[in-house]
Amino acid sequence: MAETFADLPLFRALMAKVSTFGATPGGGVHRLAASAADGQARDWFSGWLREQGFDVRVDGIGNLMGILPLAGPDAPLVLSGSHLDSQPMGGRFDGAYGVVGAAAAAVSVREALARSGRKPRFNLGVVSWTNEEGARFQPSLIGSGVHVGRLRLEDALAIRDGDGVRLGDELARIGYAGSDTLPRAHTYVELHIECGPELERAGQRLAVVTHWWGAVKVRVSFVGRQAHTGPTPMAARHDAGYAAALVGCGLRDMADVLNGGPAERLYTSIGRLETEPNSPNVVPGRTRLFVELRSPEPDVLVQAENDLKALIAHAAGKARVEAVIEDLSIRPAGRFDPTLAALAGRYASVLGEVPMELATIAGHDAIPMADIARSLVIVTPSVGGICHHESEYTAPEDLDMGVDWLALMLLDLVTTGSG
Amino acid sequence: MAETFADLPLFRALMAKVSTFGATPGGGVHRLAASAADGQARDWFSGWLREQGFDVRVDGIGNLMGILPLAGPDAPLVLSGSHLDSQPMGGRFDGAYGVVGAAAAAVSVREALARSGRKPRFNLGVVSWTNEEGARFQPSLIGSGVHVGRLRLEDALAIRDGDGVRLGDELARIGYAGSDTLPRAHTYVELHIECGPELERAGQRLAVVTHWWGAVKVRVSFVGRQAHTGPTPMAARHDAGYAAALVGCGLRDMADVLNGGPAERLYTSIGRLETEPNSPNVVPGRTRLFVELRSPEPDVLVQAENDLKALIAHAAGKARVEAVIEDLSIRPAGRFDPTLAALAGRYASVLGEVPMELATIAGHDAIPMADIARSLVIVTPSVGGICHHESEYTAPEDLDMGVDWLALMLLDLVTTGSG
Repeated sequence: MAETFADLPLFRALMAKVSTFGATPGGGVHRLAASAADGQARDWFSGWLREQGFDVRVDGIGNLMGILPLAGPDAPLVLSGSHLDSQPMGGRFDGAYGVVGAAAAAVSVREALARSGRKPRFNLGVVSWTNEEGARFQPSLIGSGVHVGRLRLEDALAIRDGDGVRLGDELARIGYAGSDTLPRAHTYVELHIECGPELERAGQRLAVVTHWWGAVKVRVSFVGRQAHTGPTPMAARHDAGYAAALVGCGLRDMADVLNGGPAERLYTSIGRLETEPNSPNVVPGRTRLFVELRSPEPDVLVQAENDLKALIAHAAGKARVEAVIEDLSIRPAGRFDPTLAALAGRYASVLGEVPMELATIAGHDAIPMADIARSLVIVTPSVGGICHHESEYTAPEDLDMGVDWLALMLLDLVTTGSG
Repeated sequence: MAETFADLPLFRALMAKVSTFGATPGGGVHRLAASAADGQARDWFSGWLREQGFDVRVDGIGNLMGILPLAGPDAPLVLSGSHLDSQPMGGRFDGAYGVVGAAAAAVSVREALARSGRKPRFNLGVVSWTNEEGARFQPSLIGSGVHVGRLRLEDALAIRDGDGVRLGDELARIGYAGSDTLPRAHTYVELHIECGPELERAGQRLAVVTHWWGAVKVRVSFVGRQAHTGPTPMAARHDAGYAAALVGCGLRDMADVLNGGPAERLYTSIGRLETEPNSPNVVPGRTRLFVELRSPEPDVLVQAENDLKALIAHAAGKARVEAVIEDLSIRPAGRFDPTLAALAGRYASVLGEVPMELATIAGHDAIPMADIARSLVIVTPSVGGICHHESEYTAPEDLDMGVDWLALMLLDLVTTGSG
């Protein structure tokens, strides 16, 4: 079984095609959730699924699923996929790889079953979840969150992007405000690029993601007073930009204190910062910060959350502005399904590889999916650990091996159901 | 001569009307340079000027001038005005007061001359300069800068706003890419609101602006690397947002060190901060800061400029990003015309007021105009010192007195030419 199993020419053709939707000059994609480019990618992908005989369904939040009814209408479902949306000026592999990789693997499994005459016990599905990235619409993981019941559909549809546009309206505009019910999977496996440097550092090609870091995401606004930067005395300013700067400095200090050792224990970031009115000669009257704290250690995360709140209060006092914590969401650290992880390790060995075990620090749709199904993420290397950037890259032979790996797992899962 | 001299009902009507263009719910205006609202205000104002018999001219950068040829085609010009553009969600008085105040004063002067039979030696003009604010297009003072030769017309027309739109195209769109030559003034007087708290603190109503603070305006970009805030180790980040925060903190420290005494010696600000890609879970790959330093003391300003450069280099090193100083412009401190200032003081006394002397920290079109003409700014109080904000306010009786004051000065200037 060490020979190539999946239909890799098919995978390569799908990967090349999906990369054209929202393609950027630097080799990446700019395919924000529910944008026109996202709609074009969806149209192409759902059309291809139909041509291949998948039963295609779209639910109310735009999750797109294609099902091969291998074992009959009432059989349980093995599901694989990821997301077609990207970060702004993002990479072509993050998400799309897991969608088209699952599609190619599913077709390969169907063909293998036909050749062998083996009778599957499960149906096999491919899925693309809506707005995994959380770039255009916050929070991230909206589609899978609605599917598992973490988010209410009405609330999710009402979420607005930075321009005030409703997600529900944008889904309708691109034709993906569906009304189908999606079946709940028994088992979910998500193929992804690592988006980090560990595989490359270790000189390995395949890793099983056994657990995920906890994360705290905080949206905080500082409200000061818009004023002229000329005549307004420094002592009379209520500078919301200064408060944001104080948080930016203190937040990094929080991480630096903990990360002196070989393993980093706390990641902190401000990815998005809105400044109003953002005019060169006006003291900012309002800023809004999207802060993240991430750690594998629950105690560290709790302490960091408390430290952040104290930092926000300190910054507000020093800049003489009001602080409003508008949103605070906690994703506890957790473990993926150990039986599935063992199955993945077994097939990595079949492919001649020594599988690494990793934690994911990023969110993946497999995390909400773990609420309702056996769930796992498997990954291939990211060159230089680069992700969320046009220059994100995974070598073609590694991409191929990941798809082969996934196909082997899916064949096992639809026939034995075990893992 | 202590009775009311200017046509104040006319002034009040003009002030009410101009406040409707780009009016905001909070009582301010949002009338960015060369926007549709700016175009509407210009259409109304130039139409009114023509009705009143002004010779209306528009030059290549959209400066709008109305001339009363009181003394004949070859007579020198006394000019008064300010600007119709506003900050985003700005106040209704900043700029517009000086334009419609000058218009009402000019009509009053013409009527007084007609009543008295006195023969003027000067023509009298009213002007609105393009893009004084520097909010939509940088730098500020573009229209007056082109008029006096500080900026080349072609360069000014090619300036782009934050959306990449050319000023020249926007002026053409609203119909104010003119081709007239504007006469150079012999004397320029600009009526403005103080935009600061000094008059109110002193309990006075009129101030003569005798000099201006120096300013250094710096546009700096930090270029790091866009990366996922999840899997990217803190030690591997090149965070352009962190560099911006370090400058934001250090810049305030620079001012705090100097401003311990009763008089503040250095103002520092970051009014505009651009963050890219500005996604909650992406380490910012690029930030751009619009930094200002202002001081009445030339030595302090030179030292602050050096300190800022060192701070930028320190921040870039600590955040492991590149720093690029894209633009650095220096406006040296200077003095308005002392003879004009003395004239303004005399007429303030005529109105029964004790005139204060102030420095302006903000830029005004009167500063470039000082390159080519006798130039002065006179101001009335700003309640609470508030400016560049919807709640900017000057009491009606103070507005009236300022217009009366200006009209008395203009009558003197067009007849005696002295001051």
